[in-house]
Amino acid sequence: MLVESLTESQQPLPKRSPSAILERYLAVRHQTDTLCDPLEVEDYVVQSMEDASPVRWHIAHTTWFFETFVLRPYLSGYTEYNTRFQYLFNSYYVQAGERFSRPDRGMLSRPTVREIGAYRSHVDHHMTELLSSVSDDEVLRVVEIGLNHEQQHQELILTDLKHMLSRNPLYPAYRNIESSSDQDPGAIEWTRFDGGLVEVGTNGPGFFFDNEGPRHKVYLEPFKLANRLVTNGEFVEFVEAGGYDHAPYWLSEGFATREREGWTCPPYWSKRDDEWHRFTLGGLQPVNPNEPVSQISYFEADAFARWAGARLATEFEWEHASMTVSHDGNFVDNGKYSVETADPGRSSELQGMFGNLWEWTRSQYSPYPGYEAEPGALGEYNGKFMSNQFVLRGGSFATARSHIRATYRNFFPAYARWQFTGIRLARDVR
Amino acid sequence: MLVESLTESQQPLPKRSPSAILERYLAVRHQTDTLCDPLEVEDYVVQSMEDASPVRWHIAHTTWFFETFVLRPYLSGYTEYNTRFQYLFNSYYVQAGERFSRPDRGMLSRPTVREIGAYRSHVDHHMTELLSSVSDDEVLRVVEIGLNHEQQHQELILTDLKHMLSRNPLYPAYRNIESSSDQDPGAIEWTRFDGGLVEVGTNGPGFFFDNEGPRHKVYLEPFKLANRLVTNGEFVEFVEAGGYDHAPYWLSEGFATREREGWTCPPYWSKRDDEWHRFTLGGLQPVNPNEPVSQISYFEADAFARWAGARLATEFEWEHASMTVSHDGNFVDNGKYSVETADPGRSSELQGMFGNLWEWTRSQYSPYPGYEAEPGALGEYNGKFMSNQFVLRGGSFATARSHIRATYRNFFPAYARWQFTGIRLARDVR
Amino acid sequence: MLVESLTESQQPLPKRSPSAILERYLAVRHQTDTLCDPLEVEDYVVQSMEDASPVRWHIAHTTWFFETFVLRPYLSGYTEYNTRFQYLFNSYYVQAGERFSRPDRGMLSRPTVREIGAYRSHVDHHMTELLSSVSDDEVLRVVEIGLNHEQQHQELILTDLKHMLSRNPLYPAYRNIESSSDQDPGAIEWTRFDGGLVEVGTNGPGFFFDNEGPRHKVYLEPFKLANRLVTNGEFVEFVEAGGYDHAPYWLSEGFATREREGWTCPPYWSKRDDEWHRFTLGGLQPVNPNEPVSQISYFEADAFARWAGARLATEFEWEHASMTVSHDGNFVDNGKYSVETADPGRSSELQGMFGNLWEWTRSQYSPYPGYEAEPGALGEYNGKFMSNQFVLRGGSFATARSHIRATYRNFFPAYARWQFTGIRLARDVR
Amino acid sequence: MLVESLTESQQPLPKRSPSAILERYLAVRHQTDTLCDPLEVEDYVVQSMEDASPVRWHIAHTTWFFETFVLRPYLSGYTEYNTRFQYLFNSYYVQAGERFSRPDRGMLSRPTVREIGAYRSHVDHHMTELLSSVSDDEVLRVVEIGLNHEQQHQELILTDLKHMLSRNPLYPAYRNIESSSDQDPGAIEWTRFDGGLVEVGTNGPGFFFDNEGPRHKVYLEPFKLANRLVTNGEFVEFVEAGGYDHAPYWLSEGFATREREGWTCPPYWSKRDDEWHRFTLGGLQPVNPNEPVSQISYFEADAFARWAGARLATEFEWEHASMTVSHDGNFVDNGKYSVETADPGRSSELQGMFGNLWEWTRSQYSPYPGYEAEPGALGEYNGKFMSNQFVLRGGSFATARSHIRATYRNFFPAYARWQFTGIRLARDVR
Repeated sequence: MLVESLTESQQPLPKRSPSAILERYLAVRHQTDTLCDPLEVEDYVVQSMEDASPVRWHIAHTTWFFETFVLRPYLSGYTEYNTRFQYLFNSYYVQAGERFSRPDRGMLSRPTVREIGAYRSHVDHHMTELLSSVSDDEVLRVVEIGLNHEQQHQELILTDLKHMLSRNPLYPAYRNIESSSDQDPGAIEWTRFDGGLVEVGTNGPGFFFDNEGPRHKVYLEPFKLANRLVTNGEFVEFVEAGGYDHAPYWLSEGFATREREGWTCPPYWSKRDDEWHRFTLGGLQPVNPNEPVSQISYFEADAFARWAGARLATEFEWEHASMTVSHDGNFVDNGKYSVETADPGRSSELQGMFGNLWEWTRSQYSPYPGYEAEPGALGEYNGKFMSNQFVLRGGSFATARSHIRATYRNFFPAYARWQFTGIRLARDVR
Repeated sequence: MLVESLTESQQPLPKRSPSAILERYLAVRHQTDTLCDPLEVEDYVVQSMEDASPVRWHIAHTTWFFETFVLRPYLSGYTEYNTRFQYLFNSYYVQAGERFSRPDRGMLSRPTVREIGAYRSHVDHHMTELLSSVSDDEVLRVVEIGLNHEQQHQELILTDLKHMLSRNPLYPAYRNIESSSDQDPGAIEWTRFDGGLVEVGTNGPGFFFDNEGPRHKVYLEPFKLANRLVTNGEFVEFVEAGGYDHAPYWLSEGFATREREGWTCPPYWSKRDDEWHRFTLGGLQPVNPNEPVSQISYFEADAFARWAGARLATEFEWEHASMTVSHDGNFVDNGKYSVETADPGRSSELQGMFGNLWEWTRSQYSPYPGYEAEPGALGEYNGKFMSNQFVLRGGSFATARSHIRATYRNFFPAYARWQFTGIRLARDVR
Repeated sequence: MLVESLTESQQPLPKRSPSAILERYLAVRHQTDTLCDPLEVEDYVVQSMEDASPVRWHIAHTTWFFETFVLRPYLSGYTEYNTRFQYLFNSYYVQAGERFSRPDRGMLSRPTVREIGAYRSHVDHHMTELLSSVSDDEVLRVVEIGLNHEQQHQELILTDLKHMLSRNPLYPAYRNIESSSDQDPGAIEWTRFDGGLVEVGTNGPGFFFDNEGPRHKVYLEPFKLANRLVTNGEFVEFVEAGGYDHAPYWLSEGFATREREGWTCPPYWSKRDDEWHRFTLGGLQPVNPNEPVSQISYFEADAFARWAGARLATEFEWEHASMTVSHDGNFVDNGKYSVETADPGRSSELQGMFGNLWEWTRSQYSPYPGYEAEPGALGEYNGKFMSNQFVLRGGSFATARSHIRATYRNFFPAYARWQFTGIRLARDVR
Repeated sequence: MLVESLTESQQPLPKRSPSAILERYLAVRHQTDTLCDPLEVEDYVVQSMEDASPVRWHIAHTTWFFETFVLRPYLSGYTEYNTRFQYLFNSYYVQAGERFSRPDRGMLSRPTVREIGAYRSHVDHHMTELLSSVSDDEVLRVVEIGLNHEQQHQELILTDLKHMLSRNPLYPAYRNIESSSDQDPGAIEWTRFDGGLVEVGTNGPGFFFDNEGPRHKVYLEPFKLANRLVTNGEFVEFVEAGGYDHAPYWLSEGFATREREGWTCPPYWSKRDDEWHRFTLGGLQPVNPNEPVSQISYFEADAFARWAGARLATEFEWEHASMTVSHDGNFVDNGKYSVETADPGRSSELQGMFGNLWEWTRSQYSPYPGYEAEPGALGEYNGKFMSNQFVLRGGSFATARSHIRATYRNFFPAYARWQFTGIRLARDVR
């Protein structure tokens, strides 16, 4: 029943009118501009690591997506803006043609930010033309994918910018950020679930990515889930207990990664005058011990859990539990751009399942029984990444509220530490 | 019911007498010698890649295992043979102390093969002394782990030797190998399973590795499993249809691996005078189109399946199906050292589930609900590898018959291609 | 005698008045602005390879040089503009303190170009103050080093920009460039020199870098020097004769570099519709066969010479021969930004010894007898690079006329191909 | 005059009779066997780094040299032993055909040491046949090159073996080595040379490598040369004064190498119980402070010299000075296999110029005026390495006495530290 009401509430386009989809299109596109407001031209250019992209690339690529998958096939008479952009701004859609080398995205100074702005205007103009009249379900589905795609890149704009700014010894802030509460959230409390044969995944009717379906049965043993995320203060205990040096807490590959990369604390952390600091979107700040620990890798989350005598949840435990809570949370829509501290007054309920921080699960990213990829180049969106990735659930403070669902599966390699990720512990019931 | 009878048949040591375990110990140790019979001294020294080890290391390390985990803790008055060997021959047991660097195992010429032989004799002498009288269940469990461990290294001796010999332009043979049958096995036939809520894994009573338990319920959709493995002939069709160049068949990471490594056909294959050949333990041979294709990576198995309009089975589908067949097969015990062709006369039954070739499953290697690792250093055996690996099932022609079980979970990274692996296709039932 | 007149003409500051040095300071600083005129903000940010730097770094670093080596020690009461800039904009002066990692210069978007402009203005203001009154010879020497240093970075701004723009599939031009003459320069003619015991290097009185002295004797065998540089047309013959694939023409390290890097023609060259093109500061252009070949590595210059039955000159042969010609040439001062074709009407004289293209010599960069480095951090300018570099002589079209001398020693590793380098052949006289 | 007598004494084959060359052939070949006497079969197989080769390769390659350059062209009716050996045992002679990949030489276990022994016997048999009657000067020159080539590989057998054994935590000794004298050699004394226009290099008549000629004039400033090599004790002072951490002592490339490789002391050195030890061909030994420091790189030698207020000699200073001393020394012929301490009783003369340790010069390895490489594949011996190498002079305790000459030019990259190299200081005279 919970499930029914939820899929109803999140259902974005059952028989949407053209004007509704156009309105949503313009709103999503505008949000990209809003995120770029505080930037200098120079900030758009740098690619600070292979996994990240320059902002100028993100804003061009999301535009390329609509041009390639909507305007070219569906707007009659449309001619592409610049034939070289097909090559420059394709990411990984092999079936959409050759692509410029990913690690070299930061090698380009042209087209300039202003020129890319002109490209966006051009595409927005033609999308407006198309969306003012279209009613073809297939087109609307692709537009919806394009908007969800742009929302994903909005989150990446923030994670990539933060990574880039963090490499600068001047510690420039992205914008002013209000401090999170420093109220102690109290000890972790646990909610118990009985498990049994349950259903997970979705078949709609609202929008969902192909990897979220088909809906199917899984059998869960009884389990307990922590009511809040692990805090910085708890993580400092792990660090100071030598957790990073004690191999038995770690996956073998995790310990090797930690040695190779020299990890001794979460990324963005450093000690100054014997006090832990972390680099945030608001610049360098003292670590708030009550705030959830963030941007840790799966390897660190898993090692912490083992040290704490617990484990991470499976993605199905998480999804099953999430059905019991509302879809509210700390999303990018509220303009905070930072993590929230749990509320000690609500310690008996599951807090922050949606928004705030993506939650690592112990589930490796695999296809559901009967999984079928989207047809054509759009089928390269999800299925081809089903190796060497772990599933994350629930969204973060950088995620749009309209983007997330209980069945939504995000995925990153176990070593990734530049996304807004956190730790929620789980336990077996014996 | 099937399950009951099976675990009964495979149960290796319920109340084994000391003499039985000693006999088994001597037999397993002797099998290592048998595998080394055809070798020159030089063959023991080379490490042909980081994933492989020199034979001299394998035979010392398996001896170190008994010395470290059995003789030192349980044989009173035992003094270790050479204190430096603790360091030299530990593999990855962090809790057992510092280890010599793995990729440098091929840098050592000493101790010589003869000196390692003396070390083996010394340990065998003391193990015989201990096993002649011991009845402590804990000791027997560790000995049994040690024997299973040595059987795993026996298989690695063959895979590592083959890799090393294959790098030699002289194509030296490990030993004379009888050709497999070149009878056409006929088209693939399929066996259907209804699925539903089934049990997988084991709690004993026979020996099993910690990763095989606890026994638990999973829900399976109906599925079909191919009655035989994919053949070289079928794989050549994939190769010649451009399968290695067509990205949509591949996982993204697989296609990148294939590009980086320059894969255009299975490892050990080459074309000479326009005819496919492959390097085998018996030297360079023309490819037999009727024989199962072998030593392919998960990436290739998965791409082939997608090209063929099928998929790989999950490990639970495989395990469930394996309950219906006998535990017979082409094991190392029969001294063939090569793969067997399927029998066209038995095309209506699942052939070769045990032995012949390890079968890649689409399941990433994860802990079962309620999984607990072995205590102490032996707990580093399985659990710490639960990231970035896929599960293989059923054993190969290089596996000892007494080593394998329906619940046995082998695991390798998706790129690994030096194990004796093959492809069995599966399909959804719609 | 020739030498006397030459050192007289090039002698930049014997008893310069403060107003003369200030005028020179402002002129050199202004030239940096002139070079940046055509740039977009985005062009200042990118670092296209480890050997190159972003333009924003060059313009900040040359300013840092004056702040560090002139204003801080010699302008009383000067306080540094931003204490973090010491760290950000030091290049390799170990004695001047810690430095930001060189390969990460392209990771920074801040300080912005505008902020760096303010830094330049601040330093120029204080330099003007200082230079309006100073007469201390030591200060004047350091200022002169700083100006020569900035002139070197002006050349690097052009070479680094060209490299960066060349990685962009849009082939953006730095500015409009006039085509070089396509008149055939005729066959190479040779000028003979008798050699004997000659003097090379300088002790002043004009400005010179420490590596140009002391003046000393060397013994030269008779030799012949080509009157013009090797042309693109001649180099195409080498390419089309399979020169890149024939190991005996190459140094061993050169052939290995060529294999590892996949060199098959000069950098910036590509074939389009079966015609050779090259990327220039004016964009992509068809190769002009009469123009000198440029931007080749020492390895390519040396291989070409061997193929041509000749060799490169030593730096002392070059210097000795250069005494016979005037110091005129194609320098950056003339605003052409491109290479000039030799004049067939002057084929009997040594053409283009100064300006146009740096000329690789076969001399490895070593100290002269009695060499002493500049004291202090400025001593890190030259001497510490005396391994694994070859000497280049004469300057290029990107060099300032006032910067070059007959005794001037430039140096780059043998694999470097992003400087404006060319080939002048030499021969033994038998 | 000195030169005349010297070239006379070292002149190996002016009109040698066939029996003399055969005798020399057999003696040199026998010396290779002598060096291998203490080895286990396993010791022949390992390649401990890319720069080193397995002993089995050295003994096959030196045989291949005679087969390829003598027997095949000059012994009529000769058929090669094994056609695959051309490929397996060619080193870098591009004109002699394709070669097996150098860094993979340690990947091969076959042909076995015994089989390579049979190959050597076969070639020796046919060489004996040929040399019993041949009188063709061209053949004799190639045989003489082959013998000098084998002598070079004899030295490499020792340096490569030492490197390999040093990677083994058991510290196995190559053989028993007598300790060097621990008598204090006293302070360094200096011999002054006036310099002027002198002649260096050779045109024969004795055997010499092509890189030693033509004989030609160079002009030398007056200089002083240290009468003995720098000792371990002196080098410890440099180490303990922080010499490895003080950038101004180092070439830029040297300091970067030291950082990348983590150098903090000479190779083979380690501290145990606060005492310096070094690994020698006789196993691990306390450092003898009076013995010359050995196996340091050019970078370390150059940094030490700068710290000591001195410099290294040029190769021509060294050669000129060496004309004044006898050709005696500590060569491999005396069977010591270790370095000798200088004799305090002879402190007023240049000691140890020949033998004991190769001496780094500050000269980069370049062709002499008029240099011409040997014709054909043998021309690949020397000339193609003339970049990024420094010249070493005088031979070591691992060099054969009959192999070395005053004009002999050895060369290695500045970072190389596995040869038997030492430091002799030089100084300008002011």
